[in-house]
Amino acid sequence: MLSTYLHNVRKSKPLVHNITNYVTVNDVANTLLALGASPIMADSAKEVADITSISQALNINIGTLNQDKVHAMIQAGKKASELKVPIVFDPVGVGASDYRTQTAEYFLKTLDLTVIKGNASEIKALANGSGLTQGVDASVNDQVTDASLQVNLDLAKKSAQKTGAIVIMTGPIDLVTDGDKAFRVDNGHPMMGTITGTGCILSAITAAFVGANPNKPLEASLAAVSLLGLCGQLAYNRLSELDGNATYRQYLIDAIYQIDQETFDNQARYKAL
Amino acid sequence: MLSTYLHNVRKSKPLVHNITNYVTVNDVANTLLALGASPIMADSAKEVADITSISQALNINIGTLNQDKVHAMIQAGKKASELKVPIVFDPVGVGASDYRTQTAEYFLKTLDLTVIKGNASEIKALANGSGLTQGVDASVNDQVTDASLQVNLDLAKKSAQKTGAIVIMTGPIDLVTDGDKAFRVDNGHPMMGTITGTGCILSAITAAFVGANPNKPLEASLAAVSLLGLCGQLAYNRLSELDGNATYRQYLIDAIYQIDQETFDNQARYKAL
Amino acid sequence: MLSTYLHNVRKSKPLVHNITNYVTVNDVANTLLALGASPIMADSAKEVADITSISQALNINIGTLNQDKVHAMIQAGKKASELKVPIVFDPVGVGASDYRTQTAEYFLKTLDLTVIKGNASEIKALANGSGLTQGVDASVNDQVTDASLQVNLDLAKKSAQKTGAIVIMTGPIDLVTDGDKAFRVDNGHPMMGTITGTGCILSAITAAFVGANPNKPLEASLAAVSLLGLCGQLAYNRLSELDGNATYRQYLIDAIYQIDQETFDNQARYKAL
Repeated sequence: MLSTYLHNVRKSKPLVHNITNYVTVNDVANTLLALGASPIMADSAKEVADITSISQALNINIGTLNQDKVHAMIQAGKKASELKVPIVFDPVGVGASDYRTQTAEYFLKTLDLTVIKGNASEIKALANGSGLTQGVDASVNDQVTDASLQVNLDLAKKSAQKTGAIVIMTGPIDLVTDGDKAFRVDNGHPMMGTITGTGCILSAITAAFVGANPNKPLEASLAAVSLLGLCGQLAYNRLSELDGNATYRQYLIDAIYQIDQETFDNQARYKAL
Repeated sequence: MLSTYLHNVRKSKPLVHNITNYVTVNDVANTLLALGASPIMADSAKEVADITSISQALNINIGTLNQDKVHAMIQAGKKASELKVPIVFDPVGVGASDYRTQTAEYFLKTLDLTVIKGNASEIKALANGSGLTQGVDASVNDQVTDASLQVNLDLAKKSAQKTGAIVIMTGPIDLVTDGDKAFRVDNGHPMMGTITGTGCILSAITAAFVGANPNKPLEASLAAVSLLGLCGQLAYNRLSELDGNATYRQYLIDAIYQIDQETFDNQARYKAL
Repeated sequence: MLSTYLHNVRKSKPLVHNITNYVTVNDVANTLLALGASPIMADSAKEVADITSISQALNINIGTLNQDKVHAMIQAGKKASELKVPIVFDPVGVGASDYRTQTAEYFLKTLDLTVIKGNASEIKALANGSGLTQGVDASVNDQVTDASLQVNLDLAKKSAQKTGAIVIMTGPIDLVTDGDKAFRVDNGHPMMGTITGTGCILSAITAAFVGANPNKPLEASLAAVSLLGLCGQLAYNRLSELDGNATYRQYLIDAIYQIDQETFDNQARYKAL
């Protein structure tokens, strides 16, 4: 039952070190708190090794990159690799610029990543060194649907095998694989695409789940994906006529705060592939 | 009818590249999504040219400046000018420091700006190389009201003629002019002044409107101004007794998400001057 | 009556210059607006002296530090010290990294701080040059409760005497002292710990209160602490069954926007120690 992994987050309150973009950082922090984890943000090379050293997980997100931040990510990543602190990597918009692509490739080569999370375009760009990324959203051709399930599953598995990381590929269907075992997750709601930050939130809570369940990174990742998707459904159910995406964002975080283990187990929709 | 311009945004989903401040960036992103556009934020000189190249509009906002950001703005602005990607420029707080004033003047001289948006104090500071800017709000003496309409209209028109850009001057009455034609907009609500970010949101959605209506920048700008003001009114109407500015911010973005073309055409309040 | 200090904020609308972290900066801005103050954010060494010069208070928060920001804080702090602009210092997470500790110690030595605000772990780290800071929250052993009141009061008073600043120590009970007089504040609600930013908000509104009441910094600080705690209670009272921390954050800012002087005086809970 996935709720065990949630229980472990709430019990151990893992400190998650986030080096993330300034667009969605507030949502990331409040979502980690909603989940029961403890967020810390620090992105100067002068302190990230110290911060990573006291953390249970490191979340690296390249949504708004610059030279200082990349330098800090490398410092933090090396310290995490050294101390076996799990690293979640979110290659936001990789493929949209050479800078993002080269930075992501460098991280893949040098850091010991536990989880890589991206949409199909991003995972493809990582695999191929190029992609069809249009901004930060997956190209329409790259959506994970029933029709494209097999090709995307193959891609995700190959990426996992090549990188040694668990790969989460998000879309209408989400895929989670360690290169051997694989799961599809059918929780989620299209309204999640109308707000910024659902991707960033997913990486952050995945870091919390993996940090609190260090011996079960695949199952912990699966739990994170299913939980966020389910909360996306619950948030949608609360909307009334005049509500739009801003209220939806709020209800999404509220749902993570409120969800109990029974609801999670009853409504999680996933299966092994 | 202004709703045509909104329709074009929703149909073409323009990618808007924002180099903006870290105070209101999340609202900017969620508002662009609410409108039906697609936001991307990137502010490193190492990638902005790539990002601008795939975008339909560039939004430059100097709310929190630093050397790296200015350098990135110049790179992105030059690429936009080269590729005829429309640029919206928001000189937040120009006049409040020499740095902002000099930076804004440099952009005016070197970039091919499509739209400049500011309050009366900011537009005056841009025109005169100095102003009475008190922080980021317009000085009381500089408010665009019926009493000060003519003097502000003259200033806006002269600025438009001098810069070759469309000038949006915001206030209790908003003015939109290309130096020849001019409009006043009477949508809006005083409560919009109680939240941070309405100005930043306006530049961002103006970029989306102009990006989706590249041959009609004056009308597209007018539509952006009227739409935001009208949504400010609709958001106010939703407030209940205990609600304050935080709920108002949420309802404002919700209103942009929800507004339909008929409501927009029926309630837009503007006229040619 | 504490409401006088609130009245002075609303009447004089102090401009508060914030050099703060990018995690909670939007909440800081909207809360200052809710209170009736005027926020400005600027963190480049190229302009902070200009901005501080037109401000009634300076708020320095080290939540996300980097070299440029530290340099700007020093520039702004020196200008503020020179012009007698009150400075509020929030040593977020001091003790969690050497960089934060050294930076905070440098500020203590070189700037003329009016108020220092931290949780017990942070104030202890400042006093001892080290502490038990676990991330950005107070260690459980460091909570200010009735049981630990005396030891924490002694620490707060000693810090105030040593630094010459008013010390605000936050926790289940909040302490406010100038080293001689001291107050305990019993407003507040545990739910405030479920959102990011309540600490940052407190420093910012303290800056507004002190800026609007420059001759009464101790009482102004006390008013800020009590007001935020009380609004935390009022926000909690508004929550309904499905609401979580995201809605709570919104209601907290709304409560600051809505609170009237009579409610404040009637429900403020503090006493001299």
